[in-house]
This record gives sequence, structure tokens and C-alpha cells, in this order.
Amino acid sequence: MSGIRPLVLEAAVRQCTRSRPSPAFRDALHRRQAPKPQAQRRCYSDGPRRPPVPSGLPQRTTVFAPKTRIAVGVVFISALIYSMVTGDKQSLAADTPSIAEQDTLRKRESGITATSPMRLRMEALIKAKQREIVRALEAIDGGKFLTDTWTRPNGGGGISCVLQEGKVFEKAGVNISIVYGTLPRKAISQMRVNHKALDPDVESLEFFAAGLSLVLHPNNPMAPTVHLNYRYFETANADGSTNAWWFGGGTDLTPSYLFDEDVIHFHRTIKEACDQHDKNYYSRFKKWCDEYFSVKHRGETRGVGGIFFDDLDESEKDQESLFAFSSTCLDAFLPSYLPILKRRKDMPFTDREKQWQQLRRGRYVEFNLVHDRGTAFGLATPGARIESVLMSLPLTARWQYMHEPEIGSREERLMQVLKQPVEWVE
Amino acid sequence: MSGIRPLVLEAAVRQCTRSRPSPAFRDALHRRQAPKPQAQRRCYSDGPRRPPVPSGLPQRTTVFAPKTRIAVGVVFISALIYSMVTGDKQSLAADTPSIAEQDTLRKRESGITATSPMRLRMEALIKAKQREIVRALEAIDGGKFLTDTWTRPNGGGGISCVLQEGKVFEKAGVNISIVYGTLPRKAISQMRVNHKALDPDVESLEFFAAGLSLVLHPNNPMAPTVHLNYRYFETANADGSTNAWWFGGGTDLTPSYLFDEDVIHFHRTIKEACDQHDKNYYSRFKKWCDEYFSVKHRGETRGVGGIFFDDLDESEKDQESLFAFSSTCLDAFLPSYLPILKRRKDMPFTDREKQWQQLRRGRYVEFNLVHDRGTAFGLATPGARIESVLMSLPLTARWQYMHEPEIGSREERLMQVLKQPVEWVE
Repeated sequence: MSGIRPLVLEAAVRQCTRSRPSPAFRDALHRRQAPKPQAQRRCYSDGPRRPPVPSGLPQRTTVFAPKTRIAVGVVFISALIYSMVTGDKQSLAADTPSIAEQDTLRKRESGITATSPMRLRMEALIKAKQREIVRALEAIDGGKFLTDTWTRPNGGGGISCVLQEGKVFEKAGVNISIVYGTLPRKAISQMRVNHKALDPDVESLEFFAAGLSLVLHPNNPMAPTVHLNYRYFETANADGSTNAWWFGGGTDLTPSYLFDEDVIHFHRTIKEACDQHDKNYYSRFKKWCDEYFSVKHRGETRGVGGIFFDDLDESEKDQESLFAFSSTCLDAFLPSYLPILKRRKDMPFTDREKQWQQLRRGRYVEFNLVHDRGTAFGLATPGARIESVLMSLPLTARWQYMHEPEIGSREERLMQVLKQPVEWVE
Repeated sequence: MSGIRPLVLEAAVRQCTRSRPSPAFRDALHRRQAPKPQAQRRCYSDGPRRPPVPSGLPQRTTVFAPKTRIAVGVVFISALIYSMVTGDKQSLAADTPSIAEQDTLRKRESGITATSPMRLRMEALIKAKQREIVRALEAIDGGKFLTDTWTRPNGGGGISCVLQEGKVFEKAGVNISIVYGTLPRKAISQMRVNHKALDPDVESLEFFAAGLSLVLHPNNPMAPTVHLNYRYFETANADGSTNAWWFGGGTDLTPSYLFDEDVIHFHRTIKEACDQHDKNYYSRFKKWCDEYFSVKHRGETRGVGGIFFDDLDESEKDQESLFAFSSTCLDAFLPSYLPILKRRKDMPFTDREKQWQQLRRGRYVEFNLVHDRGTAFGLATPGARIESVLMSLPLTARWQYMHEPEIGSREERLMQVLKQPVEWVE
């Protein structure tokens, strides 16, 4: 393998092919009379395209599913590992338990508490938040999310929850993903640009990535689309202790029709969450969001923004503070969005207004397919699970040649705001 | 200006800003008492976004329109000049008439005949073909194309014809574009990879590009989408004689439902056109088409193919033969497609079949936004006219999470063909 390719992911996939746990891990497990690790290594088929794996087949055949599933993780962690390249081979000592193995053992022995490693705390946080958010969205829609659970052979996995053609939501996806893998040397040296804690003199490093990602497209054109993504990334030293780590994430709102009170409420709720941790966060991350979610070829932003941040590590604040910040941001999601949705989901609308929403959905597709780094990375990853990478696309979209909003219309007002981002709160 | 940017286009745009013709051209025109060249340099506003240019303003203000219009040309010629980079400045001798000026003079003096330069013959060919195709499509739809004509200040221009929400067509676009511009040094050296005739020792070269491009999306899911694009590219020596030249083009069919007889008819008609010129063309260009129109991240082709070729120059055949080949291909378009459209446009269909068509439209959007080089180039060009670049997108499209055709269904049959291209004719 050589050349510029997203081999980080391949490394992660290769990790999945290790058919046996390390000797150290086996010893630890045997001492505790725990079930064999293979029992946790079941992974599910992707759907009709791939036949289910008969239980009698050798372990390595089950690697298909995680290979295609890994894209679910890519969408979260891509902002972190996008553009990393390598051709190095992994060289982990086979007798050291991997962090995935250590974490499995820890969870088994003492569960997850405030003193657990950040990996386990982040996993617990996003799992709890996914449950809470899905429950709240089901209550407002009346429909049920379809849940698709999968595990990766050497640790990690995910839960994809999708509700399609509901009463309130045209399409809603709330996914979590946990990925354990190995970063090769070249990827490490690229990451060192932003994270000096990374040791440049090792051949490979184990990594962990976990994230929650959601996109909600409501039916009613008066109700805005919303996107959220919070993630944590970590690399481990050979002894399993934490090497480098960072947090990323954000949330942004994409209305078809502008209700100032909605946008102000959304931004104010986020700002209050930010202010609890740092008085500069909101303005810094609001600006970052406007810059990132830019449909450059149109000269307009995707929506009315929110916050976006990445690579927040020890040079920003200590780990505990940044975890608390991410946690507060996740807590703020339902309060930031549900009141808006409740106000707008049953408003009357015309065919013309529905059509305008469809045109705006087209712009959403343009941003996600042309500019979003996570999507580009997912699509370029061989064997990626495309349905997960493209889950963020709306159910329906429209492109109308030379459509121009009427002067003075509500549609034109929206366009003005998208062409020149507004400061919604002081 | 520096770095990797599509400056070829910028050079072409800069070319537009030359507010006066060269002295040699002025002299020639004056001798013949022709109207002043400025009279031909009128260019139209792009639409509501840009106010029309008052006639009293200086000439250079009219450069806005061609700058935004150039993307129309980009879509045709992008396969030729995609990825060219340069930071060089143009250095044309100001007292040599440009090829645009020479061509204007020639057309004025003697019209366009079989002995005219290939530039003028290609321009005449695509203009005639556009008229013929638009007339035939209007006859079948019953609706009228909206025609948008524009000229570039220093030569060239285009005609965009679009029919939207017609009786037969959801969206149909038939565009021609003629671009005169200047290739900087770096672009020339990149082009030399495929065209050794290019002189590597000049600072810049004038170029000419002309093409006809069409995409037709019918309403009826039983009627396939079709795409066609034929183009000619040429560079000129300092004395205005032809330096390097090449032809490119192709046509491909994208059905939502497979009717073998339709696909066989389409391929057979194209093959007959190819066979008139070279018995190897069809199989070579059919293969090239399957390779180019591949939705790589889905592991499927965009449609059932057709032909695709590029960079056909003197190393392939003489200019006259390749012009004749392009001309035969253009002649073959209506016979290849109209019989299919007539058979399918009024067939009954269900909501479920319409929805499948919409899902296939989603794939069309994915190919065009993620993989098509022309679209990528257009979107990355500063000031490009996005409505022209994205004219190929369907009016409506759909993305449904985890949609899988039923085993044994017609939808599944199509997918099999898209995953494994078929040889439709012997």
C-alpha cells in the first residue's frame, strides 16, 4: 500500500482482522472467568446486499461488516483525521492489551464512573444523550426511529437511529459511533501539526474516536433543519495511558423561512451553554461555524449558523473542562431546538413555500456533497457504508434553473442573511 | 496570483477586459469600413442578481457578465483544461490581431464555408445542431425553451436554451458555448502531456473552445435521461495559425427502468455513427464511457452508457476526419433518442415507480456533484455562473435511507446492469 489514501481507516479496519486478543488480555480474562472475547465480537450484516455470516465460518469473514460500518465513524471523526495519509504497517506488541481490550475489561470490572478513562465517559455520555434525544423526538413526531446496532470485533461499534417520512420529520438521523483503531506513522506526523503531545518517534499509535451526530429535516417548511455533532479523539501510549486527546463539535440551524425569534433563541441557548465555560467560546465558535458551513460556490452560508470547533486539547483547557463543555453543549441541544420545532411544525404553508424549502434542501445537498470534509472523506473511503455517510441528505430536494426570490419577499430576506452572516445575540 | 488554481479561466476572463481591439485589427476593420468592433462587444446581464449595465458606463464594467458566463464554456471544455494551473501573466503582442478578431473579420468578409478555419466550422455546426435539436424537442413537448443569449466582449459567446416543467420534460437544457481566451505557460506545459504539438517555449497561447451540451430529464419514469456533449479545442500560434487542436465528446443514457430494446437502439445508433468513421471507435469509446460515468462510491455506473472520448488530435486522425466524426455523432443524437422518448413518454406509471425515478435522480446528483470533472471545475472557478454549471441537475431528487430494490424486481434488474456494464450490441 502506498500513495495518498485514507489509510488511517484501513489501519482501523486491519485492526478488526486480528482474530485473537493479546495474550495479556486473554490471561486477564481467564483469571476473571469472563466469557471468551469472541462472544463480544459478533457483528451484524449491513443489509440485503451482503448475506448474513453463518456462525460456522471462520472469524475473519465477519470483518466485512465493520469494514463497511466504519464510515459511520468517519462522519464524526473525519474533521479530525481528514487528509491523513500513510503507507506504514502497524507494529503493536502482540502481548500488550489494546486500549479496546483494557476498556472492555474495565467496563466489566467496575462499570463507568467519573474516574473512568475519558474514552469510557465519552461513550457513556453520547449513549445517554442519544437515548434522551431519540425519546424526545419520538414524543414530538409520534413515529418510531428504526434502530440499527452494530459492534466492531476488536471493540467499539455504534447505533444508527433513523426516522423517515414521519408526521413531523421528513428524515431524522441520530447516530453514535465508537471506533478503536491504529494510527500509522504518517498520520501521526500529520496530526502533530495541531497536537504537539503526539510522539513523532513511534511506528504506530492506538486511537479511539467517539461521536454523536444528528441531522433533522422537518416536513414543515417553517421548521428549520438542524445539525449537531460532538466528538472526542484520543491516542494511547504503548502502556495504554493517554497520549494526545482532543474534542470537536458544533451545531447549526438551516431554516427555509427566517423567524428572527427562532434564530435568536437557538443562538442564545448555545451562547449560554458556552458562557458557562468560557466567555470567549461563543463568539470564536460562532465565527468558525459561519466559515465552515459556507456553500462557497454560491457565496452563501448553508444556514444561520451556530457553533463549530475542533482540535480543542490541553493547549485550550484541561480535559475535564472540555468534557464538561461538550456535555453542556449536548445538554443544550433539546432546549435550543425543540421550542422552535414546536412553534413551527404545524404552521400552515403554501405549495410555493414547500417548493422553496425543496430548493433550500438542494443547497443542503450541494454543501454536503461538494464542500463537507466529512462526507468527502467518507465517500473516498473504500468500502465505506454510503448509506451512513449520506444519511444527512434530505429525503427530497429540488434544483430550478435561474430561480430568484422576489424582491422584498421573505425568501429574499433569508438570502440576504445567508450572504452576510448576522450577529444574533450580544 | 500563485498556487494551484484554475487560472486558465481567469486568463480568459482577463482577455475580456481588453477594452480595445489590437491596432492591426482596427486597421483592417477601418480599411473595410466595417462597424466599430465595440458594436459586437455588447454582453447581457446575467439576471436579476446583477443589474443591467447602463450604456453610458465605461466598457470594462460590462466584463461582469462574461466573467460569470464563462462557466457555461467551462462545462464543455473542462474535460480538456481541468486541473491546469498557472501563475503567469499573459504577454500577447498588442499589435497582432487575436484569433477572435481574425475570426470576426473572416465571418464578416466571407461567411463560414468548408474552407473556413475549424473554429468557425465547429461554431456553425453546433449552432445549427442546437437549433435542430431544440426545434425537435419543442415539437415533442409542446412547450417552448427559454433562450438566453450572451456574447463575450473579445469574441465568442453562447446560447442557453432551457425548458422546465414541460409536458414531456421535467427539465431540459441545450447549451452552446464559444470561448476565446489565453492559456498561460503552466497550462500549456500541463496540456503538453497529451498534446505534443504545443510549443513549450512560449509565455502564453491564445485558445478557442466551442461545444454543445445537453441534458434532458423527462417526467415519465419509463423515459430515460440523456446527456450529450461535443466540443472542440484549439490553440493558435502568434501569427494566428492553428497550433494544437483536439475533439472530445460523447453521449450516455440514464434510465430508471430498463427496456432492453431502448438501450440496444441507443447503442446501435451510436455504433453505426462510429462505424462510419472507424470500426474500433465504438468499442473503445463505449468502454471509456462506462469508466468515466462511474458513481465510484456506490460501485455503479450512472446509467447504461453510450460513448465518451477526449483529446482526439492528429495522433488519432486528421482534423477533417475527426470533425466529420463529431458531426456524424451530433447527427445521430435525435435518431438515437427520440424513438425511445416517443415510446415511453406517455406510458402509465405508479407513484412507486415515480419515487424510484426520484431515487435514481439522486444518484445523478451524486455523480455530477461528487465525480464529474466539469462540474467540479465550474464550481471551483471564482465568479462562475453556477446556474449554468448546475443546469444538468434534475428538477427534483430523493434520498431514502437504506432503500433496497426487491429481489427479482425491475428495479433490481437495473441495479445489476449498473453494477456490471453490459455489451448491448455486437
